Amino acid sequence: MKIHFLDLVSDRTTGKGSGRKAGINPPRLLLESFLVLIAIGAGLLKLPFATVEPVTWMEAAFTATSAVTVTGLIVVDTGSQFTLFGQLVILTLIQLGGLGLMTFAVLTALALGFKLRLKQQLVAQEAFNEISLQTAGGAGKSIAVFALTAEAIGIVVLSLFFVPELGWKDGLYEALFYTISAFNNAGFALSPDSLSAYVDHPGISLSVTALFITGGLGYIVMMELLDRRSWSRLSVYVKVILLATLLLNVTATGAILLLEFGNPATLGALDSFWDKLLAAWFQGVTPRTAGFNTFDIGALTAGTSVFMLLLMFIGGAPNSTASGIKISSFVILIAATRSFLRGSHDVSLLRRSLSSETVLKALATATIGMAVVFVAVLTLSILVEDDFLDIAFEVVSAFGTVGLSRGTTGELGTAGQLVIMAVMLIGRLGPLTLGYTLTARRKSHVRYARTEFPVG
Amino acid sequence: MKIHFLDLVSDRTTGKGSGRKAGINPPRLLLESFLVLIAIGAGLLKLPFATVEPVTWMEAAFTATSAVTVTGLIVVDTGSQFTLFGQLVILTLIQLGGLGLMTFAVLTALALGFKLRLKQQLVAQEAFNEISLQTAGGAGKSIAVFALTAEAIGIVVLSLFFVPELGWKDGLYEALFYTISAFNNAGFALSPDSLSAYVDHPGISLSVTALFITGGLGYIVMMELLDRRSWSRLSVYVKVILLATLLLNVTATGAILLLEFGNPATLGALDSFWDKLLAAWFQGVTPRTAGFNTFDIGALTAGTSVFMLLLMFIGGAPNSTASGIKISSFVILIAATRSFLRGSHDVSLLRRSLSSETVLKALATATIGMAVVFVAVLTLSILVEDDFLDIAFEVVSAFGTVGLSRGTTGELGTAGQLVIMAVMLIGRLGPLTLGYTLTARRKSHVRYARTEFPVG
Ligand SMILES: [K+]
Ligand SMILES: [K+]
Repeated sequence: MKIHFLDLVSDRTTGKGSGRKAGINPPRLLLESFLVLIAIGAGLLKLPFATVEPVTWMEAAFTATSAVTVTGLIVVDTGSQFTLFGQLVILTLIQLGGLGLMTFAVLTALALGFKLRLKQQLVAQEAFNEISLQTAGGAGKSIAVFALTAEAIGIVVLSLFFVPELGWKDGLYEALFYTISAFNNAGFALSPDSLSAYVDHPGISLSVTALFITGGLGYIVMMELLDRRSWSRLSVYVKVILLATLLLNVTATGAILLLEFGNPATLGALDSFWDKLLAAWFQGVTPRTAGFNTFDIGALTAGTSVFMLLLMFIGGAPNSTASGIKISSFVILIAATRSFLRGSHDVSLLRRSLSSETVLKALATATIGMAVVFVAVLTLSILVEDDFLDIAFEVVSAFGTVGLSRGTTGELGTAGQLVIMAVMLIGRLGPLTLGYTLTARRKSHVRYARTEFPVG
Repeated sequence: MKIHFLDLVSDRTTGKGSGRKAGINPPRLLLESFLVLIAIGAGLLKLPFATVEPVTWMEAAFTATSAVTVTGLIVVDTGSQFTLFGQLVILTLIQLGGLGLMTFAVLTALALGFKLRLKQQLVAQEAFNEISLQTAGGAGKSIAVFALTAEAIGIVVLSLFFVPELGWKDGLYEALFYTISAFNNAGFALSPDSLSAYVDHPGISLSVTALFITGGLGYIVMMELLDRRSWSRLSVYVKVILLATLLLNVTATGAILLLEFGNPATLGALDSFWDKLLAAWFQGVTPRTAGFNTFDIGALTAGTSVFMLLLMFIGGAPNSTASGIKISSFVILIAATRSFLRGSHDVSLLRRSLSSETVLKALATATIGMAVVFVAVLTLSILVEDDFLDIAFEVVSAFGTVGLSRGTTGELGTAGQLVIMAVMLIGRLGPLTLGYTLTARRKSHVRYARTEFPVG
């Protein structure tokens, strides 16, 4: 049996399929699972043998939230303050929060046991926009197989670099830790300065970026790539995500190379052009939700920091280990603007038109995302005295579950940290999940008369 | 003959009517008129007898741009550095830039001499969404009559307060100056601390706010109010603009009262609650593009400044003396988000549905607006060393043609000031005008096949 996978995933994750009609509310289920996971995680991290010195409940809860939402903002140093047990708890939370959300769509579908049906019309129009899957169970299994395979490859490759340097035990552990943290776009590190020690190490820099870019492309993209193996046979969605990812990564690398070239605290400290290029690539691709760093984020120029605000807000692909408003929403906003300016009401990408529902969804995602960031920045600018750029950076980093920080996380106070925890959670569940949770859904069939409405 | 006024105005200002087809490009015409006006204005302000001491070409050009775009950001103090001649040049530029843009729609229509036609369909649906006008000439004339009447009333009322204090000559002149500056939402003042001397003067504070709120509601709203005189007979558009204006003004007043109550540099310096309320009202309504201030903007708390960023970005109503993305775009983004979350693809306001073109237009306006603000903030944060909040405030103030400043305008350097000049111009002409100028318009009738596209 063939199912229309995109339809399945998007229906499920937006809570608009038959599950919703059957009285089950996927967005709420998702929110509740995350809250339960955070509570269990905080309890485990509060255990005496989880940390070297006792941590407060607030520190445990913040760390658990940061891990489950794969953000990587920290108030307690992961490598030195958590024991091996504590670190394994964090890794487990990361794997469940990153991989877990990616499979949530399919797992919900399975749990609900609903019938998968073909959307005849769509299939007729675009027959190749499908993935051969036996059942929803098959989809769930294939996500797990794909993710675990990618992670296994990551561990092997990173071991090649870490083991010679640190010996078998520590080398393998670092390879495991950084693979899980990278593939899930978590950005947790074992060293307080993240991966700065490897700023000029092409092997580690490129392996880590490959892992988190793969995780951030998401399941749909990876399955299609493995299945189809030819550009012309890919769906428009997958082509757009790949092209936009490439464009964003190249632009970001170029911008950081330009803006930081002479900064003695960042690229200026590196001798060769190739080292600078490697470091610019690493720091250019990491803001779209991975959150590792190979130089001090607090030392970046204001220009680079502002540019990173945009990258962090955009994030990665839907149904992936990345967050933000997602590349898809960003691309659709641009496409819709271009369509309007050209006098066409048909929003299209690569010669395929988008439904008005898709455009509205991108609009809603971006609007709620902006609103969340604005309210959080406003609240923090009232609560704390910090520099405005540092506050804005912290909030957008939390929203995109990026985890880069200009050094303010520890200075926010309890109230400020609660705000950041809420933003991380909203960022990871997606702006629409917040919206669905707050909105009473009513399928009204009333059609109102059209009115004219001058704009802008 | 009856015409559908909203249709006329929105068709004209978006450049999508028959004029465009006839080879005339209203957005470009608008841009060129503004550039010519700025050049003439700069030339006049550079004349030796326009200023007390010679100004540079850059200062003259910045002042002319600020006046024509009714922004009010200044690099040379208006009251002490410009002679009466110079001030009259500024007033003329304000009147042409504020009132001029408001009448531009109708004047273009007249110049093109096109036939006004009823849109039968719309008229049938919503027969009362029209204004009785004999011709486009009648509309142009009625804008002028309305604006000049409002300004005449303003001068009389403000004279009642200024003449007893300053004598006939100076009193009348101040009444004239502040009326034109307020009605056109220009925010230019004769004193370096704007209207701070009148922070506890209800007569002047309330008259000035009444003038700029009227100007910012725009012609369509005022004409309907004068014509219909009953809430139930107003169009949905006018009701929405009035309700949103009220809600934004009340919210802003409350927020400023709360956030500044204890600030000794602002509300804390005032003794009575009523004085504080008056000052909070004044400073709450002025960021949506008027730009006057009755206390020091640089002394506001960070929270108030961040809140004002939102107000300045939103601005006033379309076809008014205000700028920003406009209240209409802001309201539509919220309505579209709400519709999507409720599972309806029909975006509605007050039980009337909006066309998908209207929704796309709001999306395009907001997207281009955000892009302009982002690029300008990024550029300035690379060019100048200033505090990030001050830079962001300056850029959003220029985009909304507000003119409030935390004191950075003079410190931006030539390159920075050129950026601000460009942003003022884009803000006043509207984000879509920039978009139209940059986009090749092609009415393609190709319909692409629909594609599924996961979002958010
Ligand atoms: K992260
Ligand atoms: K202004």
